[in-house]
Amino acid sequence: MKLLRVGAAGQERPAALDADGRLVDLSGLVAEIDGDFLAGAGVSTVRAALASGDLPPLPDPAVRVGPPIARPGKIVCVGVNYSEHASETVAELPTEPILFMKASNTVVGPDDQVLIPRGSSKTDWEVELAVVIGRPARYLETDSAALACVAGYTISNDVSEREFQLERGGQWDKGKSCETFNPLGPWLVTADEVPDPQRLGLRLSVNGQLRQDGSTRNMVFGVAEIVRYVSQFMVLEPGDVINTGTPGGVALGLPEPKPYLRAGDVIEVEIDGLGRQRQTVGQA
Amino acid sequence: MKLLRVGAAGQERPAALDADGRLVDLSGLVAEIDGDFLAGAGVSTVRAALASGDLPPLPDPAVRVGPPIARPGKIVCVGVNYSEHASETVAELPTEPILFMKASNTVVGPDDQVLIPRGSSKTDWEVELAVVIGRPARYLETDSAALACVAGYTISNDVSEREFQLERGGQWDKGKSCETFNPLGPWLVTADEVPDPQRLGLRLSVNGQLRQDGSTRNMVFGVAEIVRYVSQFMVLEPGDVINTGTPGGVALGLPEPKPYLRAGDVIEVEIDGLGRQRQTVGQA
Repeated sequence: MKLLRVGAAGQERPAALDADGRLVDLSGLVAEIDGDFLAGAGVSTVRAALASGDLPPLPDPAVRVGPPIARPGKIVCVGVNYSEHASETVAELPTEPILFMKASNTVVGPDDQVLIPRGSSKTDWEVELAVVIGRPARYLETDSAALACVAGYTISNDVSEREFQLERGGQWDKGKSCETFNPLGPWLVTADEVPDPQRLGLRLSVNGQLRQDGSTRNMVFGVAEIVRYVSQFMVLEPGDVINTGTPGGVALGLPEPKPYLRAGDVIEVEIDGLGRQRQTVGQA
Repeated sequence: MKLLRVGAAGQERPAALDADGRLVDLSGLVAEIDGDFLAGAGVSTVRAALASGDLPPLPDPAVRVGPPIARPGKIVCVGVNYSEHASETVAELPTEPILFMKASNTVVGPDDQVLIPRGSSKTDWEVELAVVIGRPARYLETDSAALACVAGYTISNDVSEREFQLERGGQWDKGKSCETFNPLGPWLVTADEVPDPQRLGLRLSVNGQLRQDGSTRNMVFGVAEIVRYVSQFMVLEPGDVINTGTPGGVALGLPEPKPYLRAGDVIEVEIDGLGRQRQTVGQA
């Protein structure tokens, strides 16, 4: 099932793609696509309504697409989780996941503008598989228990300012939480439609030039291990998001002069089965 | 004005201390003490009602005190922000604020139990002045603009697991976001009652032994500079919390064997004018 939220920023309504790929309106059925929706009967309610085939089409199918879930309680990010990205940024592969956080109010729609922060000269892209949590996760012991806590998947562009991240005190969050720094979506694809999250191609291009072209099979730590691991250090809640790391090909890892983002650039992001994003870059 | 939230965890109702120090019930007047309350007419509405003197007393004044604001959108923390704490943990004073994040679902009431995470042997305490944001803050230019975004102050115990923070990948968030790791409260003291946030004594004791005894006058970066600085890197929203760093005296900085927290310990925390906290330590 492909769930999404459409409408003006802050006024999105829940929607879904039906079996024929048409946008149907869920606003008469459920209030919101958020943690409560995922933790409760939301998914099964929508599934039954889609099967019945009598959901109304969206009044305006050309409307803006927002992030596919309402603001997450938290966004946990895994650093240096692909071997190619490790070799372009740091010397060695991590022996356990590196975790950091991204402010939840960085989330924007998949096609919204990305703003270069004031004072930035090193704004960079990162295509990532985003995991959306559907059940509370606390001290999970097995991979199967971890996967049972995954509601579904979506695309994240984990936009990063490399000077703020790496040269301004050492803690990465400073370069990860700027306004508009987490385009998310277009769809929340429920986990049943992603039989193997470790077999997904991820691609990102800037101004038509392919920059990242990886596969989740090259993750150092896979989705199940990440969710299980994170749950040892914090309580994950329905609606939380985990950005699982980016493959090689970010600007930071390219030869000088590194092609960091500039106002007017166009970023296109894609993951197999999860849809596409397209952002234009502006200046804050 | 001293605002608080009382009742069982997750079912707190808004309350205030009146001029005679009695607990009065605000639940007939406002829905919640949260970002919307702070951004709107909440504070002035409560102030007028308190002045009129006809707010009802709380039905059960012995009820549990919760965190003084509903779950923050984010918690931003400043690292190594007191000179004594710098000398006990790192070699040099930072030249600009070090920022990291703490998951919002770490927040518990001021007297709730603090849980030592499974697998932890280095759970530590940190008394901190917490700043509660009342207006959106984005690229602020002056200290006065920054202080105008501060709704008030409260006490934070920024509980930290030092092995997770420092020895498990290098990004501090991993040791800062464990369950129950942010006792907050008891009161949100509005900024008008804290004429100089840089003249507050902070104290923390464990099992009756005074461990931290500092003053906010020894902050490396003061409240106004912190709020202004953070707003250059992320958008602060009403209800967000900034933990402004801890003075010397944490377990990490004491001689071996360092007295890290153990189940059964009692932590008492105090800041001049902001009240007191008392936590017992349990095992997750």
